[in-house]
Parts: sequence; structure tokens; C-alpha cells
Amino acid sequence: MTPKSDQVLSLLQARLDKAAILAGDAIDPRYSDDLAGERGARPELVLRPRGTDEVAEILKVCNDARLPLVVQGGRTGLSGGARVLAGEAVLSLERMTTLREVEPTAGTIVADAGVPLQLVQEKADTAGLVFGVDIGARGTATIGGNIATNAGGIRVLRYGSFRAQVLGLEAVLADGSVLSSLKGLAKDNSGYDLGQLFIGSEGTLGVVTRACLRLHPRPVTQSAAFCSLPSLGAAFGLLTFLRARLGNLLSGFEVILAPLMGDMVAALGFTAPVALSTPVYVLADIQGMSPGTDEEAFIETLSQAIEDGLVEDVVVSQSDREFHALWTLRDDVNRFLFAEDAMLSLDVSLPLPEMGAFLDMARAAQRQVDPAARDYVFGHLGDGNLHYVVRTDRPDQVAGAVFDCVAKSGGSISAEHGIGLDKKAYLHLTRAPAELAAMRRLKAALDPNNILNPGRIFDMPPALPNV
Amino acid sequence: MTPKSDQVLSLLQARLDKAAILAGDAIDPRYSDDLAGERGARPELVLRPRGTDEVAEILKVCNDARLPLVVQGGRTGLSGGARVLAGEAVLSLERMTTLREVEPTAGTIVADAGVPLQLVQEKADTAGLVFGVDIGARGTATIGGNIATNAGGIRVLRYGSFRAQVLGLEAVLADGSVLSSLKGLAKDNSGYDLGQLFIGSEGTLGVVTRACLRLHPRPVTQSAAFCSLPSLGAAFGLLTFLRARLGNLLSGFEVILAPLMGDMVAALGFTAPVALSTPVYVLADIQGMSPGTDEEAFIETLSQAIEDGLVEDVVVSQSDREFHALWTLRDDVNRFLFAEDAMLSLDVSLPLPEMGAFLDMARAAQRQVDPAARDYVFGHLGDGNLHYVVRTDRPDQVAGAVFDCVAKSGGSISAEHGIGLDKKAYLHLTRAPAELAAMRRLKAALDPNNILNPGRIFDMPPALPNV
Repeated sequence: MTPKSDQVLSLLQARLDKAAILAGDAIDPRYSDDLAGERGARPELVLRPRGTDEVAEILKVCNDARLPLVVQGGRTGLSGGARVLAGEAVLSLERMTTLREVEPTAGTIVADAGVPLQLVQEKADTAGLVFGVDIGARGTATIGGNIATNAGGIRVLRYGSFRAQVLGLEAVLADGSVLSSLKGLAKDNSGYDLGQLFIGSEGTLGVVTRACLRLHPRPVTQSAAFCSLPSLGAAFGLLTFLRARLGNLLSGFEVILAPLMGDMVAALGFTAPVALSTPVYVLADIQGMSPGTDEEAFIETLSQAIEDGLVEDVVVSQSDREFHALWTLRDDVNRFLFAEDAMLSLDVSLPLPEMGAFLDMARAAQRQVDPAARDYVFGHLGDGNLHYVVRTDRPDQVAGAVFDCVAKSGGSISAEHGIGLDKKAYLHLTRAPAELAAMRRLKAALDPNNILNPGRIFDMPPALPNV
Repeated sequence: MTPKSDQVLSLLQARLDKAAILAGDAIDPRYSDDLAGERGARPELVLRPRGTDEVAEILKVCNDARLPLVVQGGRTGLSGGARVLAGEAVLSLERMTTLREVEPTAGTIVADAGVPLQLVQEKADTAGLVFGVDIGARGTATIGGNIATNAGGIRVLRYGSFRAQVLGLEAVLADGSVLSSLKGLAKDNSGYDLGQLFIGSEGTLGVVTRACLRLHPRPVTQSAAFCSLPSLGAAFGLLTFLRARLGNLLSGFEVILAPLMGDMVAALGFTAPVALSTPVYVLADIQGMSPGTDEEAFIETLSQAIEDGLVEDVVVSQSDREFHALWTLRDDVNRFLFAEDAMLSLDVSLPLPEMGAFLDMARAAQRQVDPAARDYVFGHLGDGNLHYVVRTDRPDQVAGAVFDCVAKSGGSISAEHGIGLDKKAYLHLTRAPAELAAMRRLKAALDPNNILNPGRIFDMPPALPNV
């Protein structure tokens, strides 16, 4: 332990309960990293506050001592944002798990940062409501981490990303000042909406401690369709057509491209719901309030899409069981990919009109740096978000080549996974110097000693010597 | 003109076209103020750039000269944010009116800051889409001003406020640096979402020059119901019930309280659609995609609400003409109120569970400072947003008394009109010192010389002498 950590330890031991501080051998290795895969350093300390006031206390002490902190929620991030760097202490929000009851008139709920997403979903359900964000890591990922990374997932098309679910939040700045806005007001234009600052800023500007979240009416109908399509252009045509006909009834629009579909079916050994002879597959679903009518409208629209040549073949779920079976097939993509070796996983978004040209360009570029590379592409087409996975033994070169194509196409190098440590080197490709300079000005204004998640997203210029 | 203005004038005359600079007698009095009513000062200069690069040029020169600017869009604000203070120049975006074509696949459109809201609505309509924000000032209010104030209006319940419509924006900081993010990506988590900073910050952090806006599928059905209700509690019960049954089909939920309803009908001399014997009136409407089914579901749900005692009487529109007639009645509220004298107009929002107690408390408080006061309350109940208008000859005392009640109820003193100059004195009632301090830190970081809309929302500490 460094002298800094010793100083912080002795100050905090006097103020916090025993379980709030882990040091030395008491630190489980799980605190060192997140799901991004790379091994992190051993943390100097692990600090586990029970509430906002304790977070404030911890930050004040660490800020005075200039001890850098990495903030951890469920550690399910895929960009190394929660991975520990040498000399850092961990601030884990895992003991902040209070979840209040649903406020039924406004349709809101207040959750501590450490509450797993799935508990919010379940609590909403018991009140006859639904929470608008769903991601694969729902059981472990926490509300605080979701907010820090502006989590997306499979329902962005219908409900927007995590930002759209946040009606207010509470955050602690590096100096320990608490910004609390948990009124749960749908409309509030009285000064800056400070909460917006913390959404998607990956814990670099402040520590989110609680949030007031918006819930939605729970749909009573759902139906999914698995389609094979002749081209990506047809997929966009289908998306536009379904939107125009079904409006907000359309709830998800996921794409799986060849060769991923065929390789997955072969590897996992199941029977595909449609013939595997086309380059594009789409899982579209609806969720609505009018039993019978909704499903009829969906089938009628899909039939028209077949007639118009947008869809070659389609299977539509006829029961909740079939609905979930089709979604399981979509989830199998991750099951297949996680089991494979040497997979580079990128998460990009593109302006929809550019996506087709991007895919051609990226494939050519990746083959130039690795002729043996094989790309597996799937994602949330309705949001322009592709998970672009490449089997390659030259991951750095391929990532660079693909990100270059993203930049040329006017896209983003991270749609929903964030930048963390692992994509920092590429950020300049899609964010202009003026934007990066503005980010640094904000960081310096709110965390002048650079103690909160330092080096995540971007690096700050070296600090002046600590006099 | 001050020496500062002279300096700016001569520098800019060399760089901008003739129509870009108005000085002296060429300055029309309309540039002095906005709709808030109070007379502003004569601007030192009026600067009218044609594009983002000219905005950057102007800001750089003004920043170097420390000439304060007030930014103007359509000047329809109701909080004095665009009113000129002595010594300020006007930066008017009225010549920045480029509106690109709709991008049909993504459903987006890029608009210059000076484009009136209504033109965006109309352009969306020609593409078979709809823009999600609608406000009374649509013909004059501009996209830039809408963004700067995070405009709300009558469709927030369905589409969210203006923030939810912004997929990207371009803004210029006080030093002339341009932050441009017009990619139109639904999902982008690559570094801070800088655009969020400028939404609702009333031009104090930067000048919004362009935005990429999200459009929505255009509904094909619409139906409105005008209801009389026995109590405010019944109105909340109706809201919860309609939401649970109709989901996102429910598009608007507006309330008019007695005595406003009766006084308006008497003053304007029309026949009310329902008997005027209850304390609460609601205009609810639906917009959907399933002709026949939608309207049936609406009527069935309303019938159930009558049976349950939530609604006393209801009229449902049977045609587009009747739909618009019911909405005209809602618009008549403004026609009535604007024609009256001595009206104090407040715009507050409350947590829904607190609204009933707030109304009782506020009425008592206002009568204490002005026994003759008569309150007219209406608004967007679904968003917790009430326009609280009081006929009084003691506006300052009544405003103070009502805002105190807002604070005690955990509400906001400005739901959608912003703070500007006119509500600044009350902001401390509902925003904590730590929040105000954080706002000032952001302001100092992005506009260190305090040249952009100085004194709007909050005051900065006096600057160091300009050496």
C-alpha cells in the first residue's frame, strides 16, 4: 500500500463501519477487473459505502489525499472502465441496494446505484408496469453502472436508451458535494439539468448514487417474427415499412447477418426457423395493448412485406412460448460467440443510410490486415447499432481498420459499451479536437484533481505537482 | 455605443456581410425584449450571422473584447431570457434558416437554429412523419430557442420533451470553438454527449447553431375526449387508468380547473361541451395506427371510467373537425388569459402525488398576501406541469408565496418556460447551494468571461478586472 492509501485508510476507518473497507488479503480478486477480459491491478483498498453520505465522506477524504478511485457497479462492462490501474482504490457501490416502492400515479421508482437492473424490472412488473431498458447482463449489471454507461440494449427502438429513463438522479462530485435531484418531475427547466452530465460519462465526472426512473405501461400483447431477407437494403425497407404501419407497436428490430447465422446454427446444432439461404436475418417484435388487433396488424404488415419482396421467408410466434423461443435464438448469438476463441468484439453505430457501404468497406479493410479474418455481425438495426465481431489473431490491426471505416462513415466507435480504457486510443477518430478539449474542460471543472476514474475515456494533461 | 462595441463593430464589419450587423437607428425596437412583457434596453449592436462559422467568428471577437451578448431566436420566451440588458449586443440567429430534407430511413432531419418549429413540423408531415414537440408559439419560436429552453408543450406525455427529440447538435462556445455532432446516431456512447449540456441551459453555456432531430411515425387515428371530473384525485385515477389500458396510444392529458373553465366560457361566450358543475376538466386524446380499433378502445375505456366514478360527463370527438374543436377549447384558455389584465403567469411542476396538497396550500398562501387574488390553473397534468395564473395586483408577493409552496411540495418553479431574468430570484428555493455551485463551475469552465447571456438563470461572481 502507498502512503496515500494508508492515510485514507486510517481516516476512513474512524468514520465507516468495518465491512465498508477491505484492505490487503481481504480484497477478493474479483474487484480487479470487469468483463472486458484483461487482468487488472490489485486495488489499494476497496471502499464499500452504504449510502450517499458515506460516498461523500469517502470522496472528500480521497480527494484531499489525491488517491485515485475506480468506481464499480456490477463489473459487467466490456471496455475495461472498471478495471483497476496500479495505485487505485476501488469504490464499489455493491452495498447500496435500496429499492423503493413504485410510485404508481407518476409511474416512477427510486433505486440506489447498486441495485441490479433485473430487480428494477421485477419491481416494475409487480406494479403492472415495465422498465424500458433490457440488456443481457440484467442480473448483475447495476443501475449506477447502467447510468454511467447510458446502457442501451434491445428496447431502445421503443423506449430510448437509459438516458430517456432517468427522471432525476443524485451524484457526488469529487470534492464530496452532493447533487440531489430525485423529485421525479417529468418537466423541470429550472436551471441546468445536472443529472444529464453523469449519464454516459463513465464515472469520470461524479459518482451516481441514486436515480429516479421512469416506468412505462406494461404491454399485454407480444409477437415476434423471424425473417430472412434478400439484402440489407430490404432490412431498411422493412424497418421503414413496419414503423410507418405499426408506429410504436414495433418494439424491437434486431439483425443477424450471414455468415454468423449459418455458423451459429451449425455450431449450436439446432434447426433454424427459416431457410438459411439469404444474407440477412431480422428478428422484429411488437408489444401492444390490443389483443388480437395487434397480432393481426403485425401479420398483415409482414404479408405485405413478403409481397413487396422485402422479406423472403418469415416465422411469426403464435404464443408466448414461441415468442421467447425466437428471442432465445437471438440470445444464442452471444452463447455462440462467447464460446469461440480469438474473437475481437466491437460495438459501433452508423448513420442508417451509410451502413451498407460501411459493411462493404469494413470487410475489405479487415481482410487487408488479416486475410483469414471472419466477421460476425449482428445488432440493433433500428438504432444503427452493430455488434461487429471478428475472428482474428490480429485484433489490434483489425480494430484499427474497422474503426477507420466507422470514422469515414460518420459513425461512433462505441454505441453502447462505452470507451473505458480499451477504446481510448481510438476516440480521436470520431471525436474532434474541440470536442475532446471541451470534455477535458468539464472534467477539470468538476474533478480538478483527476481522482475519479482517471484515464477512462481520455487522459488528462499531467497535473501540477501536489504542493 | 461603448468603446467595446465600437471595437467589435469595426472588427466584424471587415468580416461579415452588410446585413449581418445592425447598429444605431437601424436597430428595430423588436430586438429589445421577448414575450415576457418587460421592456428591454436598446442593444449596442445586433449581429445576424448566416452560419455556424460566422457565429464562431462573432463569438471570438466578442469574447476577446468582453462584449456580453444576448442570444435571440424567435423571442417568444416568457421568462425574459432574451430581453436585452444595458451594454449587451444581440446575437440573432434569424438568418440561419436552412432546413435539410428528411432522412427517411433513420427518420431524422437537420435544422438550423433559426428555423421556426412549425416548418420542421410541416417538413416532417410531407415525409409522412411527425415531429414530437408542439407548443402554442410554433410559428415564431425557433429550433434553437426550443433547444435552449428544452421546450415542452402538449405532447410530452407521448414523445418526451425537446431533449428527447435531439439526436445531435452543433454549438459554439464563447471562445468560438465549434462542437459539432450531427451524425444522427440513435446510440452513441463514445465520450461525453456534449449536446446535452446546451439543452435547457438557456444560451448560457454556448450557442446552438444546428440540430439533428428525431421524427416519429405519423399517427393515422386521433380522437379527443373532454371530461368533467369530480376531483383532482379522479383526474389522476383517470390518467393511471388510461395509461394502463391504452399505453402509448394516450397522447395528451390536459387539465383545466375551476374557476378557470367557467370564467373562460362566460368571457368568451361559447357553449361548454359538458355541464360546468365540477371542479376539474380534462382533455385527453389518443393518436394511433389502427383505425376503428383505437377509437373503440378509447370509448370503451372512458365508459369504464364513468362507471368507476372517475368521470362525470364526457364528450368524445367523432371526426377530425370535432377533434380540433375540442383542442380549440383548450387553446381558448390562452386567448382568455392573454386578454385579461393584471395576470401573473407561473409555470410550475409538481410530483404528481403532491399536486393536490400543493393546490390547497398555494391557494391559502396566495389569499394571505392578496385576499382578492383569483387563481386560474390549467396545464399538462400527465407531466405534472401546471400553468398557474393569478389575477392579482400584488404579483411579486403572490409569486413568492406560490413558489414557496412549490418548494415545500418538492416541485420546480419552472416546468417549461425557463428561468431567464425573471425567475432568477426564486431559483434558490428549489435548487440547493451545491447545485447552484455546480452550475457556476460549468459556466466558468465553458464561458470564463461570462459573455453569453450573462445573468440569465443565475449571476456569476464579479469578474476580476480586465487587465
